[in-house]
Amino acid sequence: MLCDRVRMDAYHSAVFRNPHHFRGKVVLDVGTGSGILAIWSAQAGARKVYAVEATNVAEHARELVRANGVADIVEVIQGTMEDIVLPEKGESFRFLNPSFIISFPNGCQTFEIDVIISEWMGYYLLRESMFDSVICARDRWLNPGGVMYPSHARMWLAPIRSGLGDKKMEDFEIAMNDWNHFVEDTQAYYGVNMNALTKAYRAEHEKFYLKSSIWNNLHPNQLIGQPAVVKEMDCLTATVEEIREVRAQVTLPINQDRTRLAALAGWFDVHFRGSKQNPAVEEVELNTAPDENGGTHWGQQVFLMTPSPRVNEGDSVNVSFSMVRSKENHRLMDMDITYELHEASGRKLPAVATKIFLE
Amino acid sequence: MLCDRVRMDAYHSAVFRNPHHFRGKVVLDVGTGSGILAIWSAQAGARKVYAVEATNVAEHARELVRANGVADIVEVIQGTMEDIVLPEKGESFRFLNPSFIISFPNGCQTFEIDVIISEWMGYYLLRESMFDSVICARDRWLNPGGVMYPSHARMWLAPIRSGLGDKKMEDFEIAMNDWNHFVEDTQAYYGVNMNALTKAYRAEHEKFYLKSSIWNNLHPNQLIGQPAVVKEMDCLTATVEEIREVRAQVTLPINQDRTRLAALAGWFDVHFRGSKQNPAVEEVELNTAPDENGGTHWGQQVFLMTPSPRVNEGDSVNVSFSMVRSKENHRLMDMDITYELHEASGRKLPAVATKIFLE
Repeated sequence: MLCDRVRMDAYHSAVFRNPHHFRGKVVLDVGTGSGILAIWSAQAGARKVYAVEATNVAEHARELVRANGVADIVEVIQGTMEDIVLPEKGESFRFLNPSFIISFPNGCQTFEIDVIISEWMGYYLLRESMFDSVICARDRWLNPGGVMYPSHARMWLAPIRSGLGDKKMEDFEIAMNDWNHFVEDTQAYYGVNMNALTKAYRAEHEKFYLKSSIWNNLHPNQLIGQPAVVKEMDCLTATVEEIREVRAQVTLPINQDRTRLAALAGWFDVHFRGSKQNPAVEEVELNTAPDENGGTHWGQQVFLMTPSPRVNEGDSVNVSFSMVRSKENHRLMDMDITYELHEASGRKLPAVATKIFLE
Repeated sequence: MLCDRVRMDAYHSAVFRNPHHFRGKVVLDVGTGSGILAIWSAQAGARKVYAVEATNVAEHARELVRANGVADIVEVIQGTMEDIVLPEKGESFRFLNPSFIISFPNGCQTFEIDVIISEWMGYYLLRESMFDSVICARDRWLNPGGVMYPSHARMWLAPIRSGLGDKKMEDFEIAMNDWNHFVEDTQAYYGVNMNALTKAYRAEHEKFYLKSSIWNNLHPNQLIGQPAVVKEMDCLTATVEEIREVRAQVTLPINQDRTRLAALAGWFDVHFRGSKQNPAVEEVELNTAPDENGGTHWGQQVFLMTPSPRVNEGDSVNVSFSMVRSKENHRLMDMDITYELHEASGRKLPAVATKIFLE
């Protein structure tokens, strides 16, 4: 968080240009890290800030809160959003005993929180699945009429050109070539035939080089067509079900001639708009799209299309996109992308389906 | 294992130059990986080979065993050495139920195995703590008179010159400098004083840059004195207690003039000598010392001495060395190294104590 100026500026502006959301209010910072958002909330006038952090970084947050003179306002709580209970008036927080939830349901529904602030976004928005904790916090603690910081999020998909596909294909071919030499050598020098593993080796390396999402800071001139939104989310109402599986059908018009569709690129933006009843006076955007002035630590995610078809201005790419949590690790994402090229001439190329792993 | 020719050659020679250890014998391969040592054991004439592998790589081992025509001899067993039981005559293996251990202790003491072969060595021999499983296997299964492959191991320590210390010190200073700028900027732009974290940041980065053992492939001409053995181990009798904590006092004579003791370097060798009753006909050594013809994937471990004293021929360095398992992760190692420079002139410099983490 701290070294990414775009990110810092966005949150800082969002808080300090909208002090009416914070003045005299109770704020909850989900995943506070070193506590910066909690400290800003206090500086912006919050009456009370709960800063929840699951890891031992909570200890650092406590130190920073003290050193910045807001220890009377910010209470750092180490635990997960799912496991803690926030204090009722005057009480100190305590860990929630599951049996306690059942016997004192009102203890979990104090409707105390006016603002939930959190920097929960992972690569391509949803990797890490940290928004689950924000939803949990919101459903358990947010006042009716409370606001979410950020309030909205979108996932984008766009056609790009890039040398990455050729580079990765070359790396893959080198790896397979090395393997084949290794199989020959192992037979010749050590009398063991390794060929039985060639299929598994190929699959593993194909996944690694060609089917894994690639972090990249793209230049805007690598876009060869219009981006489209594949997911739009209102942070006040979004459900875990809704982000567990993202599906979209989009058409991406190509606006460059004689190029290749090397990949699709994914990124996100979030907005700080407050809520309908309680809007921001100044809306702030945090955008992770390709930017010629450099980017954020999120960069963009590149999903290679191999083979990559030649495309021209006037063509369009129909994409059927789905992204679900990996079965092995719910913090990672598996994507199924099927694209179909419609040439300006009217000719349709056969659909190509590919799997991409965001790991 | 497979891509390190020094390692492959040593095991291959050890097995095929000592076929009397394998012909008609029962062999246990602890941590077989893709199964190469088990296949060699079968090719060398073993009557039966149990190849134990904890991970899913066991499936690859099974394929290789089949493809190399030794499936009637090699039985791949997926599990840990601690949890499996080997078949009694004619039975197939089964997972050991803890209550079963208690009620049928003789079921765990069948004394079936003639040879235990294993490639268990980690960085500086003991990192990863995989030898524990070999000890467990040996104590549970090895016949009296059985042999261990390898049979002996030694850990070495030597004084070296190296540019790594200056480089790492520079990296550390750059990191601290960046941090200081960051603290200033965060105060100036975002109104938060981060200075309370400076101490923790410094400690973390000092550990990372200066107190972490560094993998390196040293050239022999970087040695500035005689190496010494800090641990000698007979694989037939070594105990877990004995490797849990390695302590040694050694004197390292310096044999180069006008240089600096930049670091101590650690490496190991192992030998395949069979046993006293049943010795190898041809002893084989696997040595990971600095070698001008390149090295092994183990390389050597470099323990920086900061500050690094100037030394001359005739000086000697008294080193008090201890290496214990990390409390947080028993596969990692924490070292305490105290060195005292005795100059040729008779002058003794004050002892310097340093902690090094092998992670």
